[in-house]
Amino acid sequence: MQQVTPAIENIVELLDEQDSSAIAELFSQAHPADIADALERLTPAKRPHAWIHIPESERGEVLAELNEGVFRDLAHELDNRELIDAIKILDIDDIADLIPDLPESVLADVLFAVDTETRASLGEVLSYPEDSAGGLMNIDAIAVRDNISLDVVLRYLRLKTELPEHTDTVFLVDRSNRLTGILPLDKLITGPANTPAINHALETPVSFLCLDGKEEVAKAFADYDLVSAPVVDEDQKLLGRITVDDVVDVIREQAEHDIMAAAGLKEEEDIFAPVAKTTRNRTIWLAVNLVTALLGSWVIGQFEGSIQQLVALAVLMPIVASMGGNAGTQTLTVVIRGMSTGTISRGNMINVLKKEAMVGVLNGLIWAVVIAAIAAAWYQSPSLGMVIAAAMMANLVMGAIAGVCIPVFLEKVGVDPALAGGVALTTVTDVVGYFSVLGLATVLLL
Amino acid sequence: MQQVTPAIENIVELLDEQDSSAIAELFSQAHPADIADALERLTPAKRPHAWIHIPESERGEVLAELNEGVFRDLAHELDNRELIDAIKILDIDDIADLIPDLPESVLADVLFAVDTETRASLGEVLSYPEDSAGGLMNIDAIAVRDNISLDVVLRYLRLKTELPEHTDTVFLVDRSNRLTGILPLDKLITGPANTPAINHALETPVSFLCLDGKEEVAKAFADYDLVSAPVVDEDQKLLGRITVDDVVDVIREQAEHDIMAAAGLKEEEDIFAPVAKTTRNRTIWLAVNLVTALLGSWVIGQFEGSIQQLVALAVLMPIVASMGGNAGTQTLTVVIRGMSTGTISRGNMINVLKKEAMVGVLNGLIWAVVIAAIAAAWYQSPSLGMVIAAAMMANLVMGAIAGVCIPVFLEKVGVDPALAGGVALTTVTDVVGYFSVLGLATVLLL
Repeated sequence: MQQVTPAIENIVELLDEQDSSAIAELFSQAHPADIADALERLTPAKRPHAWIHIPESERGEVLAELNEGVFRDLAHELDNRELIDAIKILDIDDIADLIPDLPESVLADVLFAVDTETRASLGEVLSYPEDSAGGLMNIDAIAVRDNISLDVVLRYLRLKTELPEHTDTVFLVDRSNRLTGILPLDKLITGPANTPAINHALETPVSFLCLDGKEEVAKAFADYDLVSAPVVDEDQKLLGRITVDDVVDVIREQAEHDIMAAAGLKEEEDIFAPVAKTTRNRTIWLAVNLVTALLGSWVIGQFEGSIQQLVALAVLMPIVASMGGNAGTQTLTVVIRGMSTGTISRGNMINVLKKEAMVGVLNGLIWAVVIAAIAAAWYQSPSLGMVIAAAMMANLVMGAIAGVCIPVFLEKVGVDPALAGGVALTTVTDVVGYFSVLGLATVLLL
Repeated sequence: MQQVTPAIENIVELLDEQDSSAIAELFSQAHPADIADALERLTPAKRPHAWIHIPESERGEVLAELNEGVFRDLAHELDNRELIDAIKILDIDDIADLIPDLPESVLADVLFAVDTETRASLGEVLSYPEDSAGGLMNIDAIAVRDNISLDVVLRYLRLKTELPEHTDTVFLVDRSNRLTGILPLDKLITGPANTPAINHALETPVSFLCLDGKEEVAKAFADYDLVSAPVVDEDQKLLGRITVDDVVDVIREQAEHDIMAAAGLKEEEDIFAPVAKTTRNRTIWLAVNLVTALLGSWVIGQFEGSIQQLVALAVLMPIVASMGGNAGTQTLTVVIRGMSTGTISRGNMINVLKKEAMVGVLNGLIWAVVIAAIAAAWYQSPSLGMVIAAAMMANLVMGAIAGVCIPVFLEKVGVDPALAGGVALTTVTDVVGYFSVLGLATVLLL
């Protein structure tokens, strides 16, 4: 990439060397997003030292670009006055994003610092849930009456010295401010000057209701290649617009969420947070895991006598548990992705279950034969091989069925499958794996 | 969301009922992305039956929107003539995307079917790696000489009946077609008509070199809120442009890749692929997992005598292995994300290692105490509790260190950490977990 702003990679070294003028020079030329990246690369103690070198006009944008967790901590460290000055000049949607993470002590001051009009708009945006179309929208939409001609629209736009970022369309409204069409900017330029704007509106306009979910917004932007789209209330009255830059952030956060949740982490995890804080954040996950591991151990504990008679069982049972966990996780991952992209839904769920169960049976056959051969050779016992093979078969089929059923069940009870799916699945495959190896061996071999 | 196209959710039922006219009606009103979604929801056998109801003018766009794996299979099922007719009318970048997945038998025919100019451009786009800026670009960039006035630019644009999608800027070039600036469309509308275009160019333009990686392109679009950006060669000659809709697809594919890779799956996994094919795709992953599980079992096998003397070891050792795996996976996930977003790099890696090791020590202390109490109570043996506690401590610290070092090492040897990191980590924590429980018990208790 070629750009005019310099690389910020050496920020860590510059701060270590306390080279203030070099840092100020770097920040004065860098894009706010790059400065935010630089702050995230520092330990929390160093961030306020870097902050003072950020040009005042850029500070708000830098805050808006920061990872939530990093912002929350930094906001507590900064002087309230500086924080308010930085935030008050931002766009409404950016201020609305930051507000939930602000220290309570400055919240009222921020609302007091913005002008009356902004405060009213902010109140409106904040009245919608953070993860709805209303919460994502900005109120900088350009709207014109749908019956005026293109040249009048053009003259109206010329009166503004600049258009809001990502203005690729102008929204057409009737006399009650109800959305009646979307006029692309290129039609405005290329269309005949004296024809009414509504004649050049998009044939397939997409608009969002203020309470639409942000996943739906993200999918629509991606599917229909949108740059901006209007948000309306139930009477079709125009409330604001959503732009692709915010949707890109939503898509990145969703992906981050799914990846981090699978390890019991939050997407706003601050890599450089203090040790005590990080340990505390991760403790619940390890506690849940301890409980599930104890469940597996309890199953093993029921067969202590069998293990004492045939120690090979203790050696081989983790293999069966592990293979079931891995095969099940593959099914689980496919099903969770399919559910979140909409490819899997009630209509075809039964096909998915049938198919994955069949894959489980086929995988079960393959790995049962392999493990039977290994176990029989290792312990010179064909009958041990047969028992392990049967357990492997049972656990791989179980893993496949659990991989389909667990996310469906979790979704039904309102638990995020990306968070709890993996733990639930490996609990099932550990328990079934241990139980089938030890139980079958106890019945058939001892 | 409100849109003019109908929901496609009931496509599965309509096909089952063989209600051809309802399907044709549905497809005639639906957006190509929705039709592609509908096809993905079907089993492979049914997709050609649905295909015939797609309006011919939409078929190319539908193919361009399909998941790669689904496209590859469908392309083999379709009549070559139909496939070529669908593809040849697409934009160059879309054709270039589809070509690597086309059956060889139609490849030449596709190149023969497009006009000479398109073929030349296609040759150029295909000459860049698929995952480079050159591979992502389209050749529909609008360029004008940088010294002409705004009203001349505007007149030039008016001569076209429509502008390419996502035209938010016009590129300014010198007489040798070298990029000299980027003119936003709103400046064209609001700026004084008789001033030179170059005076209104962006102050901080971002452009890409044709060999820049697509990750870099995606990060720049997200950080700098771009809608389109020019691609140039090393002499700054304008080659084409990248638009945000393609970048959104890149971001979604990357996220999909990371999530799927963690379970050893490809991002183009077709949920409804035939059982045999899916089983084959997943087999290598299970084979790798079997080898790592055997390594753990081999460690256990070295201590068969100890287990026979103290069966409690077989009951408790999976807990230590599992806790190490979970804590290590948390570190691993944070480090992989940090490396891929650039927050972690060589400059601050040592800070990450120190911190995560400290978190490991702290977690180790907490869970060592808990497990010591549980083990001592369960088996009425404080000394067994002490051994398990020491093993837990060792394995949690090891998990943290491995969680930092494994992705760094994998990246260095050119293996995708998202794919291999999890397996490598749990192998380490299983081996260390089993070895520390059994080894310590053998030395101290037996």
